Amino acid sequence: MIKALGNFGNSCIFCRIVKGEIPCTKIFDAPRYIAFLDISPATKGHALIVTKEHRETMAELSKPTLSSMMAFAQKLSRALSSSLGAEGFNILINNKAVAGQVIPHAHIHVIPRYKGDGLRIHWGVRKDFLPILKDLAEKIRTFL
Amino acid sequence: MIKALGNFGNSCIFCRIVKGEIPCTKIFDAPRYIAFLDISPATKGHALIVTKEHRETMAELSKPTLSSMMAFAQKLSRALSSSLGAEGFNILINNKAVAGQVIPHAHIHVIPRYKGDGLRIHWGVRKDFLPILKDLAEKIRTFL
Repeated sequence: MIKALGNFGNSCIFCRIVKGEIPCTKIFDAPRYIAFLDISPATKGHALIVTKEHRETMAELSKPTLSSMMAFAQKLSRALSSSLGAEGFNILINNKAVAGQVIPHAHIHVIPRYKGDGLRIHWGVRKDFLPILKDLAEKIRTFL
Repeated sequence: MIKALGNFGNSCIFCRIVKGEIPCTKIFDAPRYIAFLDISPATKGHALIVTKEHRETMAELSKPTLSSMMAFAQKLSRALSSSLGAEGFNILINNKAVAGQVIPHAHIHVIPRYKGDGLRIHWGVRKDFLPILKDLAEKIRTFL
C-alpha cells in the first residue's frame, strides 16, 4: 500500500508528510528538508531526513539541498550521541527499487548504533570482479 | 592487519593510498578527495570516495569537503549507470567500528545495483521502539 501511494505526485506519502496531511514524529523542520523518526526503526532513534521538494532519488537533488541535508545529518549524529548514547551511526541512501528504496522520494537514513544492537550491514565480497577492476575503472572514467 | 594499519596516523591505509604509497584502482582525483574501486566489492563497480585529509568519521568532515564528496557521488552514480548499466545505487557511510567501519578514515561507499545482484540491505523492524517514538524525538530535539 505504501509502495503504491509513493509513486504518484499528490499521493506520495513523503509529500503528504511534508504538507502535514499525514502525521510524523518530527525532530527538525528546515526550509529544504524535514527530519522525523522512521516508523520502521532499525535501532533506537533511527531517523529520516526527507527533501521537501519531490525528487525521486538522491541523484536528482540540487547540490545546495543535498549539502544542507548532509550537514544536518552530521549535526543529528552528534545529537543522537548526546541524547541517546549512540556510539556510532550509519548513513544510508537507497536509490531506486533495485537498491531497496521503498518510498520513491529522496531520503537519508541516519541510523544510530549501539553495542549489541543486532543490526548488521554486510555483504559477501564479489571476488569474481577483482581481476577486472582496472577494466571497470576505465569504463567508469569515460563517463566522469 | 588492515584494521591494525588503519588506526594510527602515518600508517592509516587510506592516508597511504592518498599519498600513493599503496596502489589503488583510481577513478577520480580531486583536491579534497579521491575515488577508487573497493577491493571488497559488494557489486560490480562498487567504489569508495575517500577524504584526502585524515578524519576518522563523516561527523568530522568540513562542510565543503562533505558537500564536494556527495556532489561527486551524484556524478559517479550517473557514470555507473552509463558505463556499467547500473539500475540504482546505495550510498553507505559507516561511522565508528560499532557501525561496521573497518578503516577509521572517513569514506563513502557508492554501491551500484543491478537486478539479481544478490545484495540485500535490510533490517528487522524494532517494533519495541514504536511506543516511545515521541519520547525519543523530544530527547533528540533537546540537542539540536
